Amino acid sequence: MSLIVHKYGGTSMGSTERIRLVAKRVAKWARAGHQIVVVPSAMSGETNRLLGLAKELAPAKESVAYQRELDMLASTGEQASSALLAVALQAEGMPSVSYAGWQVAIKTNSAFTKARIESIDDKRIKADLDAGKVVIVTGFQGVDPDGNITTLGRGGSDTSAVAVAAALNAAECLIYTDVDGVYTTDPRVEPNARRMPRVSFEEMLEMASLGSKVLQIRSVEFAGKYKVPLRVLSSFTPWDINIDEEAKSGTLITFEEEGGSAMEAAVVSGIAFNRDEAKISILGVPDKPGIAYQILGAVSDANIEVDMIIQNLSKDGKTDFSFTVHRNDYARVTDLLKSKVLPSLGVTAADLMGDAKICKVSIVGIGMRSHVGVASKMFRSLSEEGINIQMISTSEIKTSVVIDEKYMELAVRSLHKAFDLEA
Amino acid sequence: MSLIVHKYGGTSMGSTERIRLVAKRVAKWARAGHQIVVVPSAMSGETNRLLGLAKELAPAKESVAYQRELDMLASTGEQASSALLAVALQAEGMPSVSYAGWQVAIKTNSAFTKARIESIDDKRIKADLDAGKVVIVTGFQGVDPDGNITTLGRGGSDTSAVAVAAALNAAECLIYTDVDGVYTTDPRVEPNARRMPRVSFEEMLEMASLGSKVLQIRSVEFAGKYKVPLRVLSSFTPWDINIDEEAKSGTLITFEEEGGSAMEAAVVSGIAFNRDEAKISILGVPDKPGIAYQILGAVSDANIEVDMIIQNLSKDGKTDFSFTVHRNDYARVTDLLKSKVLPSLGVTAADLMGDAKICKVSIVGIGMRSHVGVASKMFRSLSEEGINIQMISTSEIKTSVVIDEKYMELAVRSLHKAFDLEA
Repeated sequence: MSLIVHKYGGTSMGSTERIRLVAKRVAKWARAGHQIVVVPSAMSGETNRLLGLAKELAPAKESVAYQRELDMLASTGEQASSALLAVALQAEGMPSVSYAGWQVAIKTNSAFTKARIESIDDKRIKADLDAGKVVIVTGFQGVDPDGNITTLGRGGSDTSAVAVAAALNAAECLIYTDVDGVYTTDPRVEPNARRMPRVSFEEMLEMASLGSKVLQIRSVEFAGKYKVPLRVLSSFTPWDINIDEEAKSGTLITFEEEGGSAMEAAVVSGIAFNRDEAKISILGVPDKPGIAYQILGAVSDANIEVDMIIQNLSKDGKTDFSFTVHRNDYARVTDLLKSKVLPSLGVTAADLMGDAKICKVSIVGIGMRSHVGVASKMFRSLSEEGINIQMISTSEIKTSVVIDEKYMELAVRSLHKAFDLEA
Repeated sequence: MSLIVHKYGGTSMGSTERIRLVAKRVAKWARAGHQIVVVPSAMSGETNRLLGLAKELAPAKESVAYQRELDMLASTGEQASSALLAVALQAEGMPSVSYAGWQVAIKTNSAFTKARIESIDDKRIKADLDAGKVVIVTGFQGVDPDGNITTLGRGGSDTSAVAVAAALNAAECLIYTDVDGVYTTDPRVEPNARRMPRVSFEEMLEMASLGSKVLQIRSVEFAGKYKVPLRVLSSFTPWDINIDEEAKSGTLITFEEEGGSAMEAAVVSGIAFNRDEAKISILGVPDKPGIAYQILGAVSDANIEVDMIIQNLSKDGKTDFSFTVHRNDYARVTDLLKSKVLPSLGVTAADLMGDAKICKVSIVGIGMRSHVGVASKMFRSLSEEGINIQMISTSEIKTSVVIDEKYMELAVRSLHKAFDLEA
């Protein structure tokens, strides 16, 4: 008998029919002798509907007072779906009770619309579990020190589930979603992509930040910090699937230490990609101290996030400086550079080059740490396909390249094959 | 400058366009120098939508645990509409903040789906009002001693508004609705019906219980208990109507003492009617102690509410016993009487008479207390129209008669004229 947290996404809670199936699955787990806490998202579409109404009425200028009301509003979606799941469980003959964030209490800071969890009181939940009830805790929300309702930002229910699992010292946190696990790459690009039975937290972080949108990245960080074993699995399997089989399905996200020695692990675990970025280069920049800040300070002051940053060796006291931003920010950044940055650098608009038709492809793997030659194998594989590499950036467990967008599928497939990831 | 509570019903909050108009009206009041607390209902249709989802999932047998979840669910409707109104006020440049019942806190007992308010903490609301904010408090809901969300039952937002007004010692509680006040009778039956500029609490209670469904009856009782001046007025006037004119519109519900001496008041204030009832008579019942209980005990054990009860003088040790019930309960009551009650009374089914095609017409007025001959004037007026009176029941401030349903309009119009109520 274990204490297990289940998290169900909006699609899994999308209708009363789907909620009934979730209730049957949860009841199966509870009847098998486990103590179950469920964290549901709002019914799919509900959060958008509510925020859409607010948008119709919104003041011209956003304020903290406005964001506070958005949280009052959006938090109702999870409260409603939680109550409905409790009702569905009762209809299955399973005692259950639902709690809003403030009732548990899930305490957060006061950063409305993107609050961070600070503590969870486990007393009420534990008492109900011990009384034989399934406990449902609303995802996505909490309460700040002044008793205001807060929300954790999009995808926050994943984080709620992990936080609840950490507070209760749960044996495992199961994230039920509409995919059946984490894959070596996107199966829509590479049909031979393979589900990974387990992946390390670090790898998952790199995969998530690179666009494998299975899990909210904050929830993975949270799970790593509190050592909560996290499993991503499908809520679209039949609810009465054998429980031992279900418990081993999906992808378990583990600590490296538990995954066996790095020697045994695959060198590269997966291929991630992202075509939401654009590349900007400034050529012939004077190579003197403070130049990077002079360029990127202005960009970050405009609240534009920068991803890759590359500066090459200088030649004749001049250097080329490149970086990538989200494609939506591309026009804003070039305008900003032209009007504010280039003149102070003493370069002209002709020295500014940009390209929005790029994509970033990365190989990710814990095993890379202790293996030499992984990056060069990647470069060789791309060169054999005639794909030109425009930028390179590396970290301990990943190597990313920027290439022309049109080669994305080709690059992903050739790397997937080169690193023996096929099913 | 006064502290005034506004309450807006579901129709007034029915869309973002309507919410914007409410915000403009509220902002007008606040800019005139008043401190304003608003209690909104859920957007029209929302409560039904939510409870409809619960019904699809409901367990076969209702339980306290189930009713608790219904309150978790239904309370989200008011939380959402309150947040939306706060947003709309902010867009009007009016500082505002919304609070759920538990945040204020509106403390209730634990009778889920029909809780009663026990106390309201005014500290947080007063602090916000003093800081120049419009405060929005969710209607319909509260929190019980264990921190569970409760709701007050249908129409509970009226009661919330009155309770908030009482707790804050508000100068007036304005109930904005889709009618422009309380009328001497239903204008659909008597086109000459006249809006009453003021009506006493007692009269309003009688009118409300007789079918003038302008206000939830509990809210009127509450207002009377705490001496909260209550005004019913229309939210469908233009929002920028002159504020002094608006402040005098609708119908003010007052204490008798403030309404001037009873001598000056109209003898009869209004004509109420109800065609939802059915009449049942048992003839030739043995006139001995306990007979009323023997009949009505069985009826109330079956959870059927009885309205009028009449027992005539006995003759030869026998009496006739009559009562009225809701028309929906008519068949159930006659079955029940035939199978369980008549045999024990020693009477046969032939002695049971019933009629579902009746209606009850009442004259209501504080002035009746000190005027003789009011009832006989009613009876004369009906007799002049050839309307036979089947049952009569009186209280201090009303006289009700049961007549054939087909005479309802005729009776209402002739009484409306006889008591000089016409516009």
